[in-house]
Amino acid sequence: MNQLSQWRPDMNDPLPLYQQIEAYIIAKIKSGEWTQGMKLPSQRVLAKQFGVNRSTIVAAMDRLVSAGMLEGNSGGGTRVAGDGEVDDLTLHDSEGIQPSSSPRKHWNDYVEEGMHYPNLPLVQTINRMEFAPHMIRLGTGELSPSLLPEQSMRHLFSEIASSLDTVPLSYEEPLGSLQLRRELCLELGRRGINASPSNVLVVSGALQAFQLISAGLLERQSTILLEKPSYLYSIHAFQSAGVRLAGVPMDAEGLQASALARLKQLRQAVLLYTNPTYHNPTGIVMSEARRTRLMQVCDQIGLPILEDGAYEELWLDHRPPAALKARDTSGQVLYVGTLSKIVSPGLRIGWIVGSERVIERLADIKMQTDYGSSSVSQLMAYHWLHSGYHQRHMEQLREQLRIRRDTMLELLQQDWHDIATWQKPTGGFYIWVTLTGGCSLNKLFDRALSAGILLNVGTLYDRGASRQLRLSYAYAPIEEMKFAMGKLAELIRMQG
Amino acid sequence: MNQLSQWRPDMNDPLPLYQQIEAYIIAKIKSGEWTQGMKLPSQRVLAKQFGVNRSTIVAAMDRLVSAGMLEGNSGGGTRVAGDGEVDDLTLHDSEGIQPSSSPRKHWNDYVEEGMHYPNLPLVQTINRMEFAPHMIRLGTGELSPSLLPEQSMRHLFSEIASSLDTVPLSYEEPLGSLQLRRELCLELGRRGINASPSNVLVVSGALQAFQLISAGLLERQSTILLEKPSYLYSIHAFQSAGVRLAGVPMDAEGLQASALARLKQLRQAVLLYTNPTYHNPTGIVMSEARRTRLMQVCDQIGLPILEDGAYEELWLDHRPPAALKARDTSGQVLYVGTLSKIVSPGLRIGWIVGSERVIERLADIKMQTDYGSSSVSQLMAYHWLHSGYHQRHMEQLREQLRIRRDTMLELLQQDWHDIATWQKPTGGFYIWVTLTGGCSLNKLFDRALSAGILLNVGTLYDRGASRQLRLSYAYAPIEEMKFAMGKLAELIRMQG
Ligand SMILES: Cc1ncc(COP(=O)(O)O)c(C=O)c1O
Ligand SMILES: Cc1ncc(COP(=O)(O)O)c(C=O)c1O
Repeated sequence: MNQLSQWRPDMNDPLPLYQQIEAYIIAKIKSGEWTQGMKLPSQRVLAKQFGVNRSTIVAAMDRLVSAGMLEGNSGGGTRVAGDGEVDDLTLHDSEGIQPSSSPRKHWNDYVEEGMHYPNLPLVQTINRMEFAPHMIRLGTGELSPSLLPEQSMRHLFSEIASSLDTVPLSYEEPLGSLQLRRELCLELGRRGINASPSNVLVVSGALQAFQLISAGLLERQSTILLEKPSYLYSIHAFQSAGVRLAGVPMDAEGLQASALARLKQLRQAVLLYTNPTYHNPTGIVMSEARRTRLMQVCDQIGLPILEDGAYEELWLDHRPPAALKARDTSGQVLYVGTLSKIVSPGLRIGWIVGSERVIERLADIKMQTDYGSSSVSQLMAYHWLHSGYHQRHMEQLREQLRIRRDTMLELLQQDWHDIATWQKPTGGFYIWVTLTGGCSLNKLFDRALSAGILLNVGTLYDRGASRQLRLSYAYAPIEEMKFAMGKLAELIRMQG
Repeated sequence: MNQLSQWRPDMNDPLPLYQQIEAYIIAKIKSGEWTQGMKLPSQRVLAKQFGVNRSTIVAAMDRLVSAGMLEGNSGGGTRVAGDGEVDDLTLHDSEGIQPSSSPRKHWNDYVEEGMHYPNLPLVQTINRMEFAPHMIRLGTGELSPSLLPEQSMRHLFSEIASSLDTVPLSYEEPLGSLQLRRELCLELGRRGINASPSNVLVVSGALQAFQLISAGLLERQSTILLEKPSYLYSIHAFQSAGVRLAGVPMDAEGLQASALARLKQLRQAVLLYTNPTYHNPTGIVMSEARRTRLMQVCDQIGLPILEDGAYEELWLDHRPPAALKARDTSGQVLYVGTLSKIVSPGLRIGWIVGSERVIERLADIKMQTDYGSSSVSQLMAYHWLHSGYHQRHMEQLREQLRIRRDTMLELLQQDWHDIATWQKPTGGFYIWVTLTGGCSLNKLFDRALSAGILLNVGTLYDRGASRQLRLSYAYAPIEEMKFAMGKLAELIRMQG
């Protein structure tokens, strides 16, 4: 494999390094130059030869392992598994390197070790750029600061200050504050979901729920099914726990339930993650019929469902069909919710609803992860839901989001009609736009960035979505939105 | 290995099941009945044969692997490695079970899967019992509710309500709120530690710091050195990430720095965790001379230090020697602090101080774990430190803790002088008591529990500490402390 040492990824290519490496290896395998069973050098050696961080190699290899092209083996390093058609690999996360004799170490040497993936380079850029001043964030999955209930929260602070309740400053119970869980059960009831406080675990946002589920309920190397595209592809909550993702195609009614039995069998999948209502990033709402069908299929084939209800309450035109969890009579559905998209992401309050056994196991892991969520956040969340602020806020919020959505649709109609297609969303934050011309998303991202516009490109949510953008009408001020939509149309036309 | 099927752990034995299984396997190996290289049945099969949960088997095996008696191999299951004298094993976390063909699954089936360990059964009991009414908690590592600054926090709420600052409701920056990090740098400065905001990561308590460090900086199967006994043995922050622990003996001046070079070499250790000031559970303060020596040794052998300063500010008689981090000129020390032991555990605010590269890597993992700590907690923590509440509170707190410590010392002198030995702590929460008679800690724990007293037994912190108790003077009301100390002396005498 000495020919390896000739090639290096191009630092100036907008394609991320790990994708260049991935493409390089795919080419070697597909061309037959690298044959099945052939052993690759260790990650460390590869990193050195390619002149990149080890984490970059890990990112590339992992995608190739998921694709069935490489195969890890703790004894003998990584091998070529096949050309990606075969799926039943045995993968191990070790790379078979024996520790050398007691090297001198400094903390900085550890930055590339650790089994947790770094964020995707593009996501790191976005995370950083979100805090750059004067950046217009046209894809951000967050409420604009002007839509956050600052004033009401301030009132809450003074109500708490003058109330006679004790301010909880101790560690909370493993499941979270009881008064909050009671209040959440009422809120869930309004969504058609029956739960008692012992079925609810308070978590620090939905993201932590995924973290706990992957650490607490899944074995390394198991595979979960999910919509393609999906929010989960843009983060590493599951992948860092060694869990693999396998996409289920979607249509206008949501994920294709008919594909599940085959995919489950083929990928030995252990669960289905779905975001059925105002799906991130497509905005699609799973239809009533599809929900019924999905519940049937999953029950028949014994595939547990992880339902993400993050955007559920953000309906703009009419209420969406009831959650899957509202239809669940046998404990087939684990439901995750959050205050992040409807009240405040900063509070970091989310919840998991499931059977007592599952909730207890997750609570145990949660105690070992951070000893529970902030008691002050839990207190604020309780008062927020309890005192009626929430209902009033939701009405105002829907009103504002409706205006924003309609504005963005008008702008699309006006400036983009000949360069893109899209569907009108009925709730949530997003418009999933497909560009009709052949335009490089990476170039567009960079040019938009130079023009002060931060984009969420489709490839974050599906490697194949190379002509899509996730636009969000929730974040940028309307004036900025107008400017940015025009500017962006220009940039796209330039590349055309 | 069919003889296995004869034996089962005794459900009525107070010794936890996993410890019984561990003892059983040790006996088999030590006696030579099971020889090196011999292959054990899979975890699933063992669980069935012993009539226990798979997590119990995992807990037992892992301790045996750490002890060098078993060896995991992803291809061929678990094997007998030796009699515990040899240390350089290659361990893998898989157990070589191939997925069977597409089984029907329900969420409840996953409760025993997942790579994260359950809490130790004893810790689970303690976690649960801490919320039982009328329980006297004589070992709890927390401030009594009466020592928490309820009144001042209430004032803070109204100050925030009437201030003109915006209430932060959005996601925070990856490193945490800048105003809080600035304030923490001032606080660190008072502790002799020089840091700028880019060296500080805000975390949800020190526990989360360990979680992030093990996921972000350490490879699976690496080993860390730590004091023996140690708080880290009672939790699974590192072990669940596949990291092994190797104890360093302590004396009255702290951990024995002279043992480090050999231990590092022998165990291929990657870092040293230490809690040098008011050590949990022994209360020991590492001496000035030992700190100097430790820094020298670690610098020489290239062993990075993870310093836990959780109790540092809780000096009762005189200020302790400066933190290791205050002596660090080369970035050898990563420092962890928390508000939990001095202000409020419920706030879930801690911090990590290190080089920018390390802090950035950890921040990236933090963003992927929970998108940052609660913005409301960060706001409260900032105001708390900034407004001078903290200094006033610390003075009162030390005053109260002094009274409590002296009371507990008097009670020991009065009721325990003939059944135990101990040292007077000069700060922190704990008195580490050694029972002089031959008394079973498990029985004592159960009997105390029946008498309404919750104990933290020594074995939680060191498997070998079978005659020690960690008493805490920080939690129980003084009247309860008096009753419980008398009652406990009685129970010990009964058994002795
Ligand atoms: C579908 C979906 N689920 C979950 C989350 C995570 O939200 P949080 O962790 O803030 O609750 C997001 C945020 O982007 C999301 O879009
Ligand atoms: C030595 C030590 N470090 C860290 C912690 C964790 O504290 P927290 O996660 O609440 O900050 C504790 C709590 O028991 C402790 O004793």
